[in-house]
Amino acid sequence: MDRIPILKLRDYLLVTIQVELHDQLAVTLQDDLTQQLSRTHARGVLIDISALEIVDSFIGRTLAHIASMARIMDANTVIVGMRPAVAITLIELGMSLTGIKTALNVDKGMDLLRQSDVHGSDLA
Amino acid sequence: MDRIPILKLRDYLLVTIQVELHDQLAVTLQDDLTQQLSRTHARGVLIDISALEIVDSFIGRTLAHIASMARIMDANTVIVGMRPAVAITLIELGMSLTGIKTALNVDKGMDLLRQSDVHGSDLA
Repeated sequence: MDRIPILKLRDYLLVTIQVELHDQLAVTLQDDLTQQLSRTHARGVLIDISALEIVDSFIGRTLAHIASMARIMDANTVIVGMRPAVAITLIELGMSLTGIKTALNVDKGMDLLRQSDVHGSDLA
Repeated sequence: MDRIPILKLRDYLLVTIQVELHDQLAVTLQDDLTQQLSRTHARGVLIDISALEIVDSFIGRTLAHIASMARIMDANTVIVGMRPAVAITLIELGMSLTGIKTALNVDKGMDLLRQSDVHGSDLA
């Protein structure tokens, strides 16, 4: 697998991460996402990590980079589907994912993105 | 990876197939989908195969099984994101995916599911 598919759902982009994110795959995902944001004028990015049993510091940094890139392209990022064990690990690793919003599932994540749209970005 | 995540999007379930579907993974996906249909009362299933470069007869049959199971659980199935080369291969394999609806992307697939809801299932 050479790239992670990015799905367009109305005004948002949805990425489901199912495989281990090695270096090249992470770079490709970042490239693809910025291009899709530019092409589709999407207002937000939803990243589902429910398939990930482990989120190490590399993935944590990659997610933070994606959120930062999306933010300067005028889109909010919401991480959804984080497993309890992953949340514990992230905090133990000292990664609090500052600036990244999270929601329990895609529905709640989309609600969050819609609210951010209405009230203006508070991720700035 | 032991299972493919199933995302709930309002009244629909979304599955993005990114990895090769081996036997056990396909069985697990079918089990999980029927359980989710029962639990969430979803009205339709969207299966995105844009990441698949090859769809062999096993995957074709699995998709047909999923659509049949969803149908008897009162949900329509739409396959989205099929690559042109995959469409060619399927027809050459003699698999016309009878009874499965297709759409070019998730947005169009959701439109199709909504129309089916309004006009009643025509997959019967």
